Amino acid sequence: MASKLVAIVAGVGPGTGAAVARKFAAAYPVVLLARNPENFESLAKEINGNGGKAIGISTDISDSKSVDAAFEKIEKEFGPGVSAAAAVFNASGRFVRKPFLELTEEDFTAGLDVSGKGAFLFSKATLPLLLKGVEQGSKYPPALIFTGATASIRGSAQMSSFASGKFALRALSQSLAREFGPKGVHVSHAIIDGVIDIPRTKEWLKDAPADAKLSADGIAEVYWQLHTQHRSTFAWEIDLRPYIEKW
Amino acid sequence: MASKLVAIVAGVGPGTGAAVARKFAAAYPVVLLARNPENFESLAKEINGNGGKAIGISTDISDSKSVDAAFEKIEKEFGPGVSAAAAVFNASGRFVRKPFLELTEEDFTAGLDVSGKGAFLFSKATLPLLLKGVEQGSKYPPALIFTGATASIRGSAQMSSFASGKFALRALSQSLAREFGPKGVHVSHAIIDGVIDIPRTKEWLKDAPADAKLSADGIAEVYWQLHTQHRSTFAWEIDLRPYIEKW
Amino acid sequence: MASKLVAIVAGVGPGTGAAVARKFAAAYPVVLLARNPENFESLAKEINGNGGKAIGISTDISDSKSVDAAFEKIEKEFGPGVSAAAAVFNASGRFVRKPFLELTEEDFTAGLDVSGKGAFLFSKATLPLLLKGVEQGSKYPPALIFTGATASIRGSAQMSSFASGKFALRALSQSLAREFGPKGVHVSHAIIDGVIDIPRTKEWLKDAPADAKLSADGIAEVYWQLHTQHRSTFAWEIDLRPYIEKW
Amino acid sequence: MASKLVAIVAGVGPGTGAAVARKFAAAYPVVLLARNPENFESLAKEINGNGGKAIGISTDISDSKSVDAAFEKIEKEFGPGVSAAAAVFNASGRFVRKPFLELTEEDFTAGLDVSGKGAFLFSKATLPLLLKGVEQGSKYPPALIFTGATASIRGSAQMSSFASGKFALRALSQSLAREFGPKGVHVSHAIIDGVIDIPRTKEWLKDAPADAKLSADGIAEVYWQLHTQHRSTFAWEIDLRPYIEKW
Repeated sequence: MASKLVAIVAGVGPGTGAAVARKFAAAYPVVLLARNPENFESLAKEINGNGGKAIGISTDISDSKSVDAAFEKIEKEFGPGVSAAAAVFNASGRFVRKPFLELTEEDFTAGLDVSGKGAFLFSKATLPLLLKGVEQGSKYPPALIFTGATASIRGSAQMSSFASGKFALRALSQSLAREFGPKGVHVSHAIIDGVIDIPRTKEWLKDAPADAKLSADGIAEVYWQLHTQHRSTFAWEIDLRPYIEKW
Repeated sequence: MASKLVAIVAGVGPGTGAAVARKFAAAYPVVLLARNPENFESLAKEINGNGGKAIGISTDISDSKSVDAAFEKIEKEFGPGVSAAAAVFNASGRFVRKPFLELTEEDFTAGLDVSGKGAFLFSKATLPLLLKGVEQGSKYPPALIFTGATASIRGSAQMSSFASGKFALRALSQSLAREFGPKGVHVSHAIIDGVIDIPRTKEWLKDAPADAKLSADGIAEVYWQLHTQHRSTFAWEIDLRPYIEKW
Repeated sequence: MASKLVAIVAGVGPGTGAAVARKFAAAYPVVLLARNPENFESLAKEINGNGGKAIGISTDISDSKSVDAAFEKIEKEFGPGVSAAAAVFNASGRFVRKPFLELTEEDFTAGLDVSGKGAFLFSKATLPLLLKGVEQGSKYPPALIFTGATASIRGSAQMSSFASGKFALRALSQSLAREFGPKGVHVSHAIIDGVIDIPRTKEWLKDAPADAKLSADGIAEVYWQLHTQHRSTFAWEIDLRPYIEKW
Repeated sequence: MASKLVAIVAGVGPGTGAAVARKFAAAYPVVLLARNPENFESLAKEINGNGGKAIGISTDISDSKSVDAAFEKIEKEFGPGVSAAAAVFNASGRFVRKPFLELTEEDFTAGLDVSGKGAFLFSKATLPLLLKGVEQGSKYPPALIFTGATASIRGSAQMSSFASGKFALRALSQSLAREFGPKGVHVSHAIIDGVIDIPRTKEWLKDAPADAKLSADGIAEVYWQLHTQHRSTFAWEIDLRPYIEKW
């Protein structure tokens, strides 16, 4: 029943999330999760209009009730036999950069709420569907992919909130790779190291070549590459940066 | 006013915390923080009886009100001019090891609550005191030391709760080292890789030599070494394990 | 002049090297380098028989004269305008595992000779051809890919020879990625973490599932993925292991 | 026969090596190895004049005959029962920084010759003496300490020679730590991340505070700390940088 295999993307916005959704929509119905419907409405329309299938669900990924409700809707939409070919966690907490002593508790936990608790809730909701995908003999190994950042491996000054969350996310992804790899689920972590080319960053790096920023489509292409890797050669971690990046 | 320099230890129990408190009590009045008074009462008595000075304060390190109250007590006890020579964060969340899909949200966040939010609250409360220690020209650079574990750099299967917290703690410590090193505070992170020799682990590794477990006093000795390093040669990270450890 | 774009593989044997050569032969003429002609003769015949083009050149990769001679042959074969779409360094020194105090100087330098000096000589010979590939506007960014191992990031007991070489290789690849990425060459390092399924390992892991070993074709597929990544999203490092691997 | 315990320092120059020799000379007779006698002559005189004991031996650490000759002299000087309390490898190859394609083979192997082969030869010569130190019940665990650099964990552009050597050295030190820790020898690796304050760097960082460079004495102090750690809490790796360093 391959028709029930879906791809679920959390953290759909104008950048990586949307590009990943478009890419995977060529193969699977896609579920778009974002807190703000504005982030998925036109994208869902676009995918549905292009012959694909997409549904958007407004979800607060760090709230268990909201996540539960989202996955009930998924089951209602695709039936109780629904399984997942891919689940991509692309959400990030509010980005905070300021002197440590000016951080409020809420500032600091902004990173952990999404990249810690949110990633946990998303993983717990999607892994049963991914395992069902394994059982059903999906063409490619079901994949759970997490979007990391430079801050996943570097705690810069004044960035403890974002870095704590991203470090925690990396720990989760590695632990899950070790537990669920042997069960056939491909768990990966991508370190996105550089500026992504999205509307918000349009004015950045203006003196650099046009492809000095990461293309969201390029990232989506790599996520698809990860998904199609044979299970005898699973990548856990990959780092991605523009060719021109200083690192 | 060197007499107002104190050492503050969070996470005082029968192992590292107590040994660190004893070690630093030879030089400074020590403040012992633990949720359960049983963890510091006899230790405070011992230190006070040996000519040192110690006070214990029951504190829930992941609760901002409890932390605020603790630091008000410290100021009441030592006066508004109190400053810190050392602050050691040795608390750990409840250790959870079970199949990921059996983890409750509360299980998962147990690690992040203490190693994430708790470490943030402790850092935010102690850094102003450590900076005051710098201003007052403390003999050794004021030090903020975090206790890590194997799980600080390795996300093992079924250990996502503990590892997420410890990864987050490492990120925080690195970010703080970069921000507060230039201000004269020595921020360090110790990766404790192995079994610590405490009552709870008495029955472990029984066939191994007596010193096959990390001695809490040995760890305390290293923390003191870190504290006394000259500021031209600050260590951020050190890994510690028994000579016989497989790694 | 796309017809002059070739792929060059050093360290062709029955495993990864041969699989990579077959994979890239579908797109480019391939040059097979190995010390022993037995390692490339039947492979070259196979590729040439299947409509591809392959030449084998007996080369001692750690000897500069031998490497020079090989690249003169490449130029003679493909013309002075020859350029490279891909260069894959897959050679490894003699594997030595024994107690450190029993290692001879020759044992120890076996790793460094190939993974250090050999990789240097190969890089120096291929980078000018890869840069020419950039100038000529090759379809995919010219790629220089190095094969690493678990020992690239772990110095196990009794494996200092192999690990020293592999650590050195990783340093070289990272340095080259930083220098030649901005010039359009995609430099990558793959950490192959597990047993590769080749004739020599046939008897290993016999109780495990058939795909418990890394498939050489799977690795070749990933190398091709790396080669086809857009230059706005270059991966430097990727780790690959069988889904069932303990790590 | 504790009187026969010596400390051996390879790579004695005006910086770390000399400071380490002075520090350890307070406890042990020291052997100073350097290629150029100018690097140890005045230092040996100074130590001998201050009530310590030092001998200098002109040694090319990457040449096995030269190393053999040096250790024969050590045995001649201190008797066949000589053992070692500490051996510090502080040598570095010629530092080369230039565009990769301008590197000669000799440029590239400059790093590996000293940090690879040289460190191997030094380890092979000193480990038997360190193991004898263990047997004789030295007060502190005999220590084999390697001096690393930023380049031990980072392959910067145009620095492949230096970085390859330093990565290889780190691999060696980790492998030895795993093999010889259980035999009682403490093997450590110090990542020196910053500019060391020596005559050659006098003009560097002139606008920064006086202690913006690593003090060689501070490094020596940390090496002594490592040597005196109890074997239940051995550090393998420590990173050291000035408080003001950007990293």
